[in-house]
Amino acid sequence: MKVVKFGGTSLASGEQLEKVFDIVVSDQDRRLIVVSAPGKRFSKDIKVTDLLIATAQAWLKGSEDDDLFQAVINRYRSITDSLGMSDEVIERITADLIELLKGDRSNPEQFMDAIKASGEDNNAKLVAAYFQHRGIEAAYINPREAGLIVSSEPGNAQVLPESYERLSHLKEKKGILIFPGFFGYTTDGRVMTFPRSGSDITGSILANAVKAELYENYTDVDAVFSVNPSIVENPKEIAVLTYREMRELSYAGFSVLHDEALIPAFRAEIPVNIKNTNNPDSPGTMIVSRRAETNGPVVGIASDNDFCSIYVSKYLMNREIGFGRKLLHILEELHLSYEHVPSGIDDLTVILRQNQLDHEREQIIIDRIKNELDADEVKVEHNLSLIMIVGEGMRSNVGTMARASRALADKGINIEMINQGSSEVSMMFGVKEAQEKLAVQALYEAFFTDVLV
Amino acid sequence: MKVVKFGGTSLASGEQLEKVFDIVVSDQDRRLIVVSAPGKRFSKDIKVTDLLIATAQAWLKGSEDDDLFQAVINRYRSITDSLGMSDEVIERITADLIELLKGDRSNPEQFMDAIKASGEDNNAKLVAAYFQHRGIEAAYINPREAGLIVSSEPGNAQVLPESYERLSHLKEKKGILIFPGFFGYTTDGRVMTFPRSGSDITGSILANAVKAELYENYTDVDAVFSVNPSIVENPKEIAVLTYREMRELSYAGFSVLHDEALIPAFRAEIPVNIKNTNNPDSPGTMIVSRRAETNGPVVGIASDNDFCSIYVSKYLMNREIGFGRKLLHILEELHLSYEHVPSGIDDLTVILRQNQLDHEREQIIIDRIKNELDADEVKVEHNLSLIMIVGEGMRSNVGTMARASRALADKGINIEMINQGSSEVSMMFGVKEAQEKLAVQALYEAFFTDVLV
Repeated sequence: MKVVKFGGTSLASGEQLEKVFDIVVSDQDRRLIVVSAPGKRFSKDIKVTDLLIATAQAWLKGSEDDDLFQAVINRYRSITDSLGMSDEVIERITADLIELLKGDRSNPEQFMDAIKASGEDNNAKLVAAYFQHRGIEAAYINPREAGLIVSSEPGNAQVLPESYERLSHLKEKKGILIFPGFFGYTTDGRVMTFPRSGSDITGSILANAVKAELYENYTDVDAVFSVNPSIVENPKEIAVLTYREMRELSYAGFSVLHDEALIPAFRAEIPVNIKNTNNPDSPGTMIVSRRAETNGPVVGIASDNDFCSIYVSKYLMNREIGFGRKLLHILEELHLSYEHVPSGIDDLTVILRQNQLDHEREQIIIDRIKNELDADEVKVEHNLSLIMIVGEGMRSNVGTMARASRALADKGINIEMINQGSSEVSMMFGVKEAQEKLAVQALYEAFFTDVLV
Repeated sequence: MKVVKFGGTSLASGEQLEKVFDIVVSDQDRRLIVVSAPGKRFSKDIKVTDLLIATAQAWLKGSEDDDLFQAVINRYRSITDSLGMSDEVIERITADLIELLKGDRSNPEQFMDAIKASGEDNNAKLVAAYFQHRGIEAAYINPREAGLIVSSEPGNAQVLPESYERLSHLKEKKGILIFPGFFGYTTDGRVMTFPRSGSDITGSILANAVKAELYENYTDVDAVFSVNPSIVENPKEIAVLTYREMRELSYAGFSVLHDEALIPAFRAEIPVNIKNTNNPDSPGTMIVSRRAETNGPVVGIASDNDFCSIYVSKYLMNREIGFGRKLLHILEELHLSYEHVPSGIDDLTVILRQNQLDHEREQIIIDRIKNELDADEVKVEHNLSLIMIVGEGMRSNVGTMARASRALADKGINIEMINQGSSEVSMMFGVKEAQEKLAVQALYEAFFTDVLV
């Protein structure tokens, strides 16, 4: 059995749904299908989920807006109309949404979650109806009945461990199963949505639960690129990526798939295939637990900006047991999360995302470090970028650092920071934000010219 | 006024003392002279300090050993005899030592400190007598009378801040002042010795107190070498070094001068000149607060071994606020001091000196990290070396990392860890201990061939 998830753009119109149909029926192992709500058909289009949020907000304010409500229904109707389907499923969707909107609004967060989730839920009903319309045995699966049980955190639900066992019976069901992504139910029956990339999470959970041979994730790109295409033109596509590589790349800005969504699949060692609904013949990118060595040490380059560093120096810091721990404790008390802590003999630097700091908080940190730790000097440097070069086995490849640092030096880029020594699949460079693009281009050139990944 | 300190080998014999005399009188600014106890004359010789320790131990055990006592006196006598001095000073030294040995032994640590300190104290009397014998106005200065007040920690005394003001009057004294190194007095008049490099500390304190124009430190080497001569043959000598460079080099095994001994001089921005008593015409190494840029980014390379790393990985560690702080807290509770903590996304590594761990403690750490932090994997790697390349302004010199990592790659050396990002004057590489020598040689070749430092 393969679990196959389709994103919003793959289900945005009747034309797209036909592609989805063709993909599913072309392989009889594609039997557990996870669907998103209809997404954008063109760049200025509005996603059904966003229409639903606006509708819920209006109704929460007491203005029971009919235009917004109709806009949602019309999105579904435009799909069924273009595919020549009967009105039956639209009537079912309309009745369902009205019932939800007129329901209990005493808990606004809970209400919002239920309305948002209806986008996927009703689309699953629509997709199932379309497969039936095409004469295929298919059924909508309700997550509650199926056993997808989650924690009670609106917008941030976490799957409960017992779900896997409960959901495993789906393996035995006949026909094609259409499962709505993005949400589950609490043990007392309330809808709760997952955090971002919610449908990817649903697919990942199901893949684990039914021990799928493959989890296919259909998007609107052919593959994961080896570098951000807005920085390097026509970058190479990555054919095979390990979970660890994926996680390191995701950290620094690779956004095809949110890596945490894949954790349930990773834990069961189920391979994930990122594919393109609009170009299903392309092999896409396979994400696996282990891959054979290829002829290049680097599989991808990612970068992210908006970091800052707090440099702290104190003469004889090196002899002061507990200094580092006390510094991290101050950050923790200020609810700041940090990324790295490179250290010298008598100094250390904390790298963190600068959106956590405003001018006032920055001053508080400086003052606390100076006063509580008796530091000689504390200074903050803004606008740093972190660049990550990622590849399994890179660490054992003598000369990777030489190649990377030579590429940066040749472009006159100063390396502010290097982090190598813990992860075995990545090296990180800190550069000034103004040099980020140039640095990424230089590294790409160094590792991807004449190299097959 | 220059403060001039002579080490034990510079004062080991009459011949050596003549050299010291010539050095001092050749510059009329050399007026505050700090002396050690007589050191080794040849490699198997015993230092006076070690003879004194043995004597004190014997007397503490109740065996009032006359041979050991006489061995001490004979060392002084061999100097005065060879210089044709009268017996007067030897009689004074003998009386002083007998009085000390017959004194209060109720506090063994205090007794030991007083006997040890007599080595320097009596040698200062001898040196002053020799200068007088040569017709020069010179006087022995007693640290208590002069105002060198320290904390009450036998063998680990710390100078008290008021000493600087008290000692400043020495600037006004006439003639050459001979000051014994290695010890001070508590406020209630007990002798306390400094930690290692004690005479260097005394010189450094005096240089600060009298705001010396220069602190000359005479040893038995011509200069600080740019790299350990047991690893690279005939390495370049360092002409000028900054305090920060000195400190970074000291950390990783440079042993000409213990950097912490220089702190009082550094704080007053007094330049320090490392010179050779046996070759006083050599300019030696100047240690200054700032130096002009030279044509090479690296001033020295130091290395030290016997480090180990503790690698800790935990899926989603990156999202867990406080993980790093909790890990450091465990180390602190186990009284382990660490050097560096490179971090990945979901892992971090602690580098520490492995002599702090035996097999049992290692297992305790692994268990605590696994159990208390719920880590997925904890592994310890032994026998690492840290290599430091040091130079002011290195950070702003594009390409230093490329040059260093290329040199290592060309010799097939795998870099286990890089620490760059906090100190502005050093970069650190971790390599396997077996490759330390080869790595240092490769780096020396890369930075010191055809380069003036």
